[in-house]
Amino acid sequence: MNTQAAEREELLVKIPYWDKLTPEEKDEVRLGSAVVGYTKGAVVQTYDGECLGSVLVLKGQLRIYLLSEEGREVTLYRLGEGDSCVMSASCVISQITFETQMTAEEDTRLLVVRSGVFEKIAASNIQVKVFMYELIIERFSEVMWAMQQILFMGFDKRLAVFLYDEYSRTGSSELKMTHEQIAKLTGSAREVVSRMLKRFADDGIVEFRRGVIFLKDIGRLKKIIM
Amino acid sequence: MNTQAAEREELLVKIPYWDKLTPEEKDEVRLGSAVVGYTKGAVVQTYDGECLGSVLVLKGQLRIYLLSEEGREVTLYRLGEGDSCVMSASCVISQITFETQMTAEEDTRLLVVRSGVFEKIAASNIQVKVFMYELIIERFSEVMWAMQQILFMGFDKRLAVFLYDEYSRTGSSELKMTHEQIAKLTGSAREVVSRMLKRFADDGIVEFRRGVIFLKDIGRLKKIIM
Repeated sequence: MNTQAAEREELLVKIPYWDKLTPEEKDEVRLGSAVVGYTKGAVVQTYDGECLGSVLVLKGQLRIYLLSEEGREVTLYRLGEGDSCVMSASCVISQITFETQMTAEEDTRLLVVRSGVFEKIAASNIQVKVFMYELIIERFSEVMWAMQQILFMGFDKRLAVFLYDEYSRTGSSELKMTHEQIAKLTGSAREVVSRMLKRFADDGIVEFRRGVIFLKDIGRLKKIIM
Repeated sequence: MNTQAAEREELLVKIPYWDKLTPEEKDEVRLGSAVVGYTKGAVVQTYDGECLGSVLVLKGQLRIYLLSEEGREVTLYRLGEGDSCVMSASCVISQITFETQMTAEEDTRLLVVRSGVFEKIAASNIQVKVFMYELIIERFSEVMWAMQQILFMGFDKRLAVFLYDEYSRTGSSELKMTHEQIAKLTGSAREVVSRMLKRFADDGIVEFRRGVIFLKDIGRLKKIIM
């Protein structure tokens, strides 16, 4: 085995259903998979685009969201390094009748098993099918959590949750995002975000400098969430 | 077999996974199932209540919804005669981390397979597990549809969709519901419903008489939805 093939093999064993495959199925995945790179902001999957396949995030971050006809976005969940996704193979799953959009939030590398190959394996290998279904139901739970936030929480709480999540994820108290971007990510309108951020600034929770939002008082932020 | 047992057997074969069961599993279901009646308005399952089990609607209608701490309801989907549900056995499915509430919208009779029995069978019989997962993913799709309505549609559309759905479901153009009830079912507030119904009345689409809403112009209603 040459170095490149050995490296590839190291990646393939990270596929969560790899151990459930027969030797023949492993060969099919070897042939029917690829490492694909996306630059920050790139659209990975659109509503009417081709169905990507099963996906493993090697590096970076994906955001999965709903998109309205008017261009409004509602974030459903995010995937980071080591996370798998089969919603990107939703064409394979007849019970899924809705479409989601997927973009790279950072420079991202994915290990993609082409939908045709994934479809064949999920049809013939019931263990892979069960894995696929369980992963979707986990996402269902995440989506329901996001929905409850959007439907039931006051916007002060939602914004605080968002800021705190960003802080936890990046480990940084500097947030380089426009109000427009935050509005999209929280399923709100820019004016609402600006107004609430102004209130948070008045309360000394955040501060604005050179287009950056500084999280000044993480403790107060957490208090709003509780 | 006596008449009662024969009648029971006729019901059991309606369980969608019945044919996938072994003779021993069928016996377990015979012992671990019951026909349960609920009067209109009765709560079938609550957030913190016991987990019911797998359910088949023999008669009537169930409504499944989210309930906020403040008592706001958002309808996710409804189940009618012949529909099955395993969300009522969500305690069995570790990937489901959210809770839903379930009430009888009419006098309702359910064939319930107790959650303990259903759990055992879903663990040992992979065909039943796959059935359970596929049913949940179908509901996921219904929930996503409802969510897109709530998040993205203007309320005029949402109310029109609701009225038209009721008309289609009951075959009657008389709607015996309070504005409060419609608000709950559309995930809105009573004032918003009243205002929009008033506008529909002004447009000659509906008419109010003795606490009943008459759908006068189904064509116009459909036009709003398109």
